[in-house]
Amino acid sequence: MKLFLGTGLVEEADASVSPFDRGFTLGDGLFETLRIKGGRVLRVGAHLARLAAGAGVLGIPLPALDLGAALAQTAEANGLSEGVLRLTLTRGPGPRGVLPPAEPKPTLVITAAPLSPPLPPARLVIAQGTRRNDRSPLAQVKSLNYLDGILARQEAARRGADDAVILNTRDGVAETSIANLFAVIDGALVTPPLSEGVLPGIMRAEVLLAVGATERPLTVDALASADEILLTSALGIRSVATLEGRPLPSTAAADRLRALIEGA
Amino acid sequence: MKLFLGTGLVEEADASVSPFDRGFTLGDGLFETLRIKGGRVLRVGAHLARLAAGAGVLGIPLPALDLGAALAQTAEANGLSEGVLRLTLTRGPGPRGVLPPAEPKPTLVITAAPLSPPLPPARLVIAQGTRRNDRSPLAQVKSLNYLDGILARQEAARRGADDAVILNTRDGVAETSIANLFAVIDGALVTPPLSEGVLPGIMRAEVLLAVGATERPLTVDALASADEILLTSALGIRSVATLEGRPLPSTAAADRLRALIEGA
Repeated sequence: MKLFLGTGLVEEADASVSPFDRGFTLGDGLFETLRIKGGRVLRVGAHLARLAAGAGVLGIPLPALDLGAALAQTAEANGLSEGVLRLTLTRGPGPRGVLPPAEPKPTLVITAAPLSPPLPPARLVIAQGTRRNDRSPLAQVKSLNYLDGILARQEAARRGADDAVILNTRDGVAETSIANLFAVIDGALVTPPLSEGVLPGIMRAEVLLAVGATERPLTVDALASADEILLTSALGIRSVATLEGRPLPSTAAADRLRALIEGA
Repeated sequence: MKLFLGTGLVEEADASVSPFDRGFTLGDGLFETLRIKGGRVLRVGAHLARLAAGAGVLGIPLPALDLGAALAQTAEANGLSEGVLRLTLTRGPGPRGVLPPAEPKPTLVITAAPLSPPLPPARLVIAQGTRRNDRSPLAQVKSLNYLDGILARQEAARRGADDAVILNTRDGVAETSIANLFAVIDGALVTPPLSEGVLPGIMRAEVLLAVGATERPLTVDALASADEILLTSALGIRSVATLEGRPLPSTAAADRLRALIEGA
């Protein structure tokens, strides 16, 4: 595979970053995951707007190049008509210490990967081992600080599940380790508002735009009463088979949304 | 400077890490900061014990080499009799996705830096912009997920201060962006317990061992009533000049502890 590093494409074998890069030393950066479909990178504008918002929170300057063109170039160079891109933007190298350098030289990396085969409906558990920090502005930023998600995903694997619902510090439902979450409860499509510590997912926004949903805090008990749960990420909409081992009776909303939004 | 990378020393100009390293892509790793004094690396056993505990939480295998020898070798190769080492251990490279590879190949980096000149007593503010996640096991792990600390440190700089006190999600005092915190209140030395979202600092433990202290939750009001505040980190004990602009009348406890522990 070829990847985009700094200002242009390089072969994977030639690509490296500095061990002094603050992305590596402090998780000081951002990322976006984008779907390539039919040779086209989907929802580039929305992803780059979220990246810009996160860069504003962290105070990382955006690179002075056309990021949309860099994404398209990376997809094309790898001949991927179906696939996934990941854009990583860090604050770049810095000396020892937490305070960012006054004039950062950000690092940009775009990598490409083939699309994984379609996944069956997910088996979900509620993560017991950690909480999502809804009291930090980082809850709304797709940052490189991903360890709470990794802990939740490891817990899911240990418990024979595919993914884990992460609760916020007030024990409300936030999202899973890699997806936003919607539920059908008493016939209504509901999802927790961003203030519950929810990442503003691009597909989440797409669903809200397409069919609307009630944004309200969800307790674990409310989620347990759902007829259907669905997971949204830039890669698609996934149904949920079980929550804590209990089968969910329906996949109708997920099927309808997949047809509406993904044309699949 | 020379740094230790993987299994041996390399020149800084030759050192690089993979852009697929999970330390770079997901902040999936740990670090330790160690003081070199009189050519000797201080408290190596305590630092490596904390590293091992963190590696246990994350499920990262420790490298099969003598880390204490690697630290000493890095200090010596750079001819530093006074200085700072930073050891970074990541889960190593991985394919796309959050779930760690079944057989990770961790990345080890040890860098050296000269000691900064002694700092004057710190001007502290209370961070308004973020909270420390005391509901995550990562609060007790010195991980690469440092963005909340970076946000707090940036806020301190904007407000003309040197560092910021970070509160936990229940609005209790946790620590600052780079140090543990002690206060003298009504004549007693107090510090928040680890359960408040406090990193188990090596110097914090040293102070508790040397003179003892009452471990109890601290509100902002209690902290504001302190006669003295002191900050502890692996690099030393620092007095506090002001909290939110209010001068603190004493530096006696910090001076006494510095003499006792640091022999300075």
